[in-house]
Amino acid sequence: MLERFKVPQVDQVKVSSESLKITVTQIFEKMGVNHEDSLLGADVLVTTDLRGVETHGVSNMMRKYTEMYNKKELNPKPSWKITREAPATANIDADKGLAVILGPKAMKIAIEKAKKVGVGIVTMHNSGHSGAIGYHAMLAAEENMIGMCMTAGGRAVLPTFGSEPLLGTNPIAFAAPAKKEPFLLFDAATSAIAGNKVELASRVNAKLLPGWISDAKGAPINTEEDVPNKGDYFLLPVGGTRELGSHKGFGFSMISETMTALLSGVMSSMLDPESKAGNHCFIAYDISAFTDLETFKNNMDKMLKTLRDSKPAPGHKQVYYPGLLEHQEIIKRLSEGIPLHKKVVEWFDNITTELNIPNLKKV
Amino acid sequence: MLERFKVPQVDQVKVSSESLKITVTQIFEKMGVNHEDSLLGADVLVTTDLRGVETHGVSNMMRKYTEMYNKKELNPKPSWKITREAPATANIDADKGLAVILGPKAMKIAIEKAKKVGVGIVTMHNSGHSGAIGYHAMLAAEENMIGMCMTAGGRAVLPTFGSEPLLGTNPIAFAAPAKKEPFLLFDAATSAIAGNKVELASRVNAKLLPGWISDAKGAPINTEEDVPNKGDYFLLPVGGTRELGSHKGFGFSMISETMTALLSGVMSSMLDPESKAGNHCFIAYDISAFTDLETFKNNMDKMLKTLRDSKPAPGHKQVYYPGLLEHQEIIKRLSEGIPLHKKVVEWFDNITTELNIPNLKKV
Repeated sequence: MLERFKVPQVDQVKVSSESLKITVTQIFEKMGVNHEDSLLGADVLVTTDLRGVETHGVSNMMRKYTEMYNKKELNPKPSWKITREAPATANIDADKGLAVILGPKAMKIAIEKAKKVGVGIVTMHNSGHSGAIGYHAMLAAEENMIGMCMTAGGRAVLPTFGSEPLLGTNPIAFAAPAKKEPFLLFDAATSAIAGNKVELASRVNAKLLPGWISDAKGAPINTEEDVPNKGDYFLLPVGGTRELGSHKGFGFSMISETMTALLSGVMSSMLDPESKAGNHCFIAYDISAFTDLETFKNNMDKMLKTLRDSKPAPGHKQVYYPGLLEHQEIIKRLSEGIPLHKKVVEWFDNITTELNIPNLKKV
Repeated sequence: MLERFKVPQVDQVKVSSESLKITVTQIFEKMGVNHEDSLLGADVLVTTDLRGVETHGVSNMMRKYTEMYNKKELNPKPSWKITREAPATANIDADKGLAVILGPKAMKIAIEKAKKVGVGIVTMHNSGHSGAIGYHAMLAAEENMIGMCMTAGGRAVLPTFGSEPLLGTNPIAFAAPAKKEPFLLFDAATSAIAGNKVELASRVNAKLLPGWISDAKGAPINTEEDVPNKGDYFLLPVGGTRELGSHKGFGFSMISETMTALLSGVMSSMLDPESKAGNHCFIAYDISAFTDLETFKNNMDKMLKTLRDSKPAPGHKQVYYPGLLEHQEIIKRLSEGIPLHKKVVEWFDNITTELNIPNLKKV
């Protein structure tokens, strides 16, 4: 994550991942989620904070999820079911369950199918937010498979040449195991920046860079700006402008939209702007159905090591393959704690008091 | 394609797609390829020219393929075989066959597998160039499936923060059928521009835009420049710089590399710079294994129509979803002919004379 998005030192309150998991689990339970699912949801969110992906950790998400549980927009006890199935596929109606919790279950179904026929793909509709989809992709990598996950929903991003924010940020995640090297783990919005990053920038008083957003008419802003008021800007697909490849960001966004909403048989959020539902897709490719697993993992090691040992460009210290920085951050944060913004800790203290559970323990 | 890449009117020689297919078929046959495969290869290449994707049509490719057949780097009569297989998967050793011709065969295997278990994925190694992979993805869409294709090979693109061109341009293609709307058909390199575009720019005397390439040390060039000499520049991942999202282009490149080379059990080109082999991946997802096909296609129609009918940004006439412009180009070129650069026609006239086959018929 870029330096400008990090919580300024003066605003940091450090908490251990264990304490954070305990508090998040207890909040989920107070929302009506059973203990096992609450633990799972807490693991997804706190692992994301450990990886340094603050945009999708507890800071931005817990407040929204509790609001949605309280408004009954999320179902804490979903009766989710498979609506159609083939040996390699399944489509899940999530009954408004949070996909942070149902995502790992869907990926496990995909993994089981992949063990049998080589590939498993599970789509999910009528569900809540998925959290950081890299977590779900990683579950497949932990089983010696390639994991892929996509999610779509919301309207925030302009198509190339467009002025109406018809696209979601539609992220794509991909994970593949190596032998000694940390996993290749890519997880990114197909917009120039994730929607959550704009909120995060606002919270840490960071400016937005040229090419990240458009003005209210859809013209890309090419100067560094403060975060505009909500409604006065739109996100751009990665690439920013057509000349710099925004049609590619737009195309990747359409892949995510098609593989999640449309393939699970529902309308794109583009056509249903009031919908609060998220749609997702979880894929596991069994490496051993294609080639020798050891060969694959050894080749991954060589490729990833070649990348991180390669000569950096002027002004840079190292090349980081996707997942490497986040792996280093996990090690650091497990020992030093997770730096939350003091406003986030304040929110935790308020909600835990309100729900009558112990306050979040600080380091 | 951007205006600057198009063949200038004064240099255009128009040929019909039928004549071009006849000549290309005859050239393949003279290389030792059988008649059926020659027809197939010609269809892949000429369809790509019809779609206006000149970078991957006959202009850039036929010269290279004939050179490689002549040097025995390509095998005109490959004994390709499946080296490992599961109900949803296959891995093909292509015996140095051209993947322009073997790609459609691999996609057909993927489609047959998808009909049985819901998904089919076929990797291919030890093969030649795939041509425009959108063609192969489209074959699945024509069978009411979602098609996806990736290919990797070569070293031309810098990883984010890097100065060594360790990545290929590693394109990703995606196709999905609609009911009345032209297919959603996305096919793009994960670099800011395709490698072939640099050659094309050189041929049509176009300048390269800021953010497309780096200098020889790996620093992104932020001004508009003539095409530098070979070796004096490198391509950048889409996004251009880290701030504008080049780590996303880098990540998409790694997806393509992993799903093609590594998953088919071979080394990445990154580690094997002398290799002439291409590695590919062909995926078909059977829509009816997830949901009702009619619902899917109707939703696709609505989504695609919403995009193209949406209000354009200042200075633009229309929003084009991936595949729409190319569809319009097919209709135009079928009636008006394909505009080849006169130098390309000169090459055709030389090679046909040399091979003792009739010259390419001009319109």
